Amino acid sequence: MITTPIVPRVSETDGAGHINNVFVPIWFEAGRREIFRILTPDLDFARWRIALVNMNVDYEAQIFFQQDAEVRTWIERVGTKSFTVGEEIWQSGRRCARGTTVYVYFNYDIQKSEPIPNDIAEGLSRLSPPEL
Amino acid sequence: MITTPIVPRVSETDGAGHINNVFVPIWFEAGRREIFRILTPDLDFARWRIALVNMNVDYEAQIFFQQDAEVRTWIERVGTKSFTVGEEIWQSGRRCARGTTVYVYFNYDIQKSEPIPNDIAEGLSRLSPPEL
Amino acid sequence: MITTPIVPRVSETDGAGHINNVFVPIWFEAGRREIFRILTPDLDFARWRIALVNMNVDYEAQIFFQQDAEVRTWIERVGTKSFTVGEEIWQSGRRCARGTTVYVYFNYDIQKSEPIPNDIAEGLSRLSPPEL
Amino acid sequence: MITTPIVPRVSETDGAGHINNVFVPIWFEAGRREIFRILTPDLDFARWRIALVNMNVDYEAQIFFQQDAEVRTWIERVGTKSFTVGEEIWQSGRRCARGTTVYVYFNYDIQKSEPIPNDIAEGLSRLSPPEL
Repeated sequence: MITTPIVPRVSETDGAGHINNVFVPIWFEAGRREIFRILTPDLDFARWRIALVNMNVDYEAQIFFQQDAEVRTWIERVGTKSFTVGEEIWQSGRRCARGTTVYVYFNYDIQKSEPIPNDIAEGLSRLSPPEL
Repeated sequence: MITTPIVPRVSETDGAGHINNVFVPIWFEAGRREIFRILTPDLDFARWRIALVNMNVDYEAQIFFQQDAEVRTWIERVGTKSFTVGEEIWQSGRRCARGTTVYVYFNYDIQKSEPIPNDIAEGLSRLSPPEL
Repeated sequence: MITTPIVPRVSETDGAGHINNVFVPIWFEAGRREIFRILTPDLDFARWRIALVNMNVDYEAQIFFQQDAEVRTWIERVGTKSFTVGEEIWQSGRRCARGTTVYVYFNYDIQKSEPIPNDIAEGLSRLSPPEL
Repeated sequence: MITTPIVPRVSETDGAGHINNVFVPIWFEAGRREIFRILTPDLDFARWRIALVNMNVDYEAQIFFQQDAEVRTWIERVGTKSFTVGEEIWQSGRRCARGTTVYVYFNYDIQKSEPIPNDIAEGLSRLSPPEL
C-alpha cells in the first residue's frame, strides 16, 4: 500500500464549505504516482502505457479544508490486459471516500490494448491491500 | 435531458495529449447546473440540499482538445431520499464517457438525509433520459 | 476582440462562497483559444509555438457562481519575439478582473525564442482592443 | 519564509508536456496556508478576512512533472490595509516562477477593507524574505 499525504488547498473547497467532490478523483490520481512509475519508470509521457476505463467512488464523509488528509492506494487485481487500483481518502482517523479505478495496458501508437508484461504485473502485485 | 456545450481548455489536457480523466467528473458537474437549480432555485450555497454519495464513470474513448464537446444530463431515478443522475460526454458524434452520480437529499444543518419534497421530485422526474 | 461565454462551475467556487481567484487565469486561458488557433491552426500540441512568460491580474470585484460570465480577449501589443494579450472578465455589466499575459514565440525543439512570422503577427494584430 | 513541498500531479500537466501555467497560481495559493492561519487561526471560512486584489507572476523556466517541486513563500510588505506576499517555485535547484500577490484585509459582512490589526501585522512581518 502507498500512502500519500495531501494538504487541502483553498481552491479545492467549494461554496458548501468543504472539499468539492471533483477533487477526490484528483487526489486519487495524485496517489497513483508510484503506480505510474512502475509502468513508466522515468514518468515520460511519450512512454505512457495505460488508459483509464472505469472509476467508481463512494463518498462516505465530508472532507474538510482545515485538516491534513491521506490517500491510501493499492492494487486490487492484476488481469491479463487490465488492472484495478483500490484507493481511499482518510482524514482525522475517518475514511471519507473509497474507490476503484480500472486501467488497461494500452499502446497509444497502435491505439490498442496489450497484455501487461510479466515484470510490470509482478511490480503491481507487490502493492498489496491494507490488512484488515 | 439537458445538453451543455463544453469548449475544452488547454489546462484540461495532460501530457498524454488528451483531456485528462479528472476533468470528466468536472464536466459532468458542469452539466448538472439546471438540476442544482431545481433543488436550490437561486443557487445559493446557504440553501444547498444535496450531498454526492457515489459516482461511477466509464471512459469509452479519448476526448480531444481540438473539438467542442457536449455533456448530456438526465435523471435516471428518483427515490425517497436519493436520486441518480445519468450523464454522457459526446464529441464529434462519438460517446466518450458515460456515468451515473447518486445524490442524497441532505440537511447540512442537522447533518442528516431527508425525504425529497414532492415538487422537487416532480421537477427532477421531468428531466427524462435520451430516447434510444 | 474575442468574447467567450463562461458558465461558472460549482468546483470553481470556494469556501468563501465566490469563484476562487485561481480560476480567473483558467478562464483567461479559455478565452485565448482563437489566439492559439492563429498560432497553431489545428491546435496540435506537437506544433505549439508559444511559452507564457508573465501574467498580471487585477481582481476588481467578486465573481459569483449564480450568474453567467464573459471573458473579453484581445491583443495589446505584438513585438518581434513576444506579444501581450489583454483580457477582462465581466459579469452582470460589471468588470470583475482584468489582466495582461505575455507570451514569447518559442521553438520547443531547440528551446529558444524566435521572431514571430509576419502572417501570424498580422493575424494577432487584427484582434484589436475593445473601443472605449 | 515558508517552504511547501509539491508533488506534481498528472492532471496538472498539459498537452505541451509540462506543468500548465494555470497551476502556478494554484501552487502559490497552496504555499500560503500558514499565512491564512495567521489571519484566521482555525481556517474557518466564516471568519475569512482577506480578498486578493493583484497577482503578478514571472514564468522563468518550464516545470516538469517528473520531479518534486517546492514553493517558497514570505511577506514582502505589510501596509495599513493590505499586504504583499512574495513567492517562488523551485525545482531541481532552479527557480521556475516568481510572483507577488497583494491581499487587502477585508470585512465580507460590510464589504469593506479595514486596517490590519497589530497582532496580525506582526505575525505576517515575521515571515521574512529568503536571505540572498
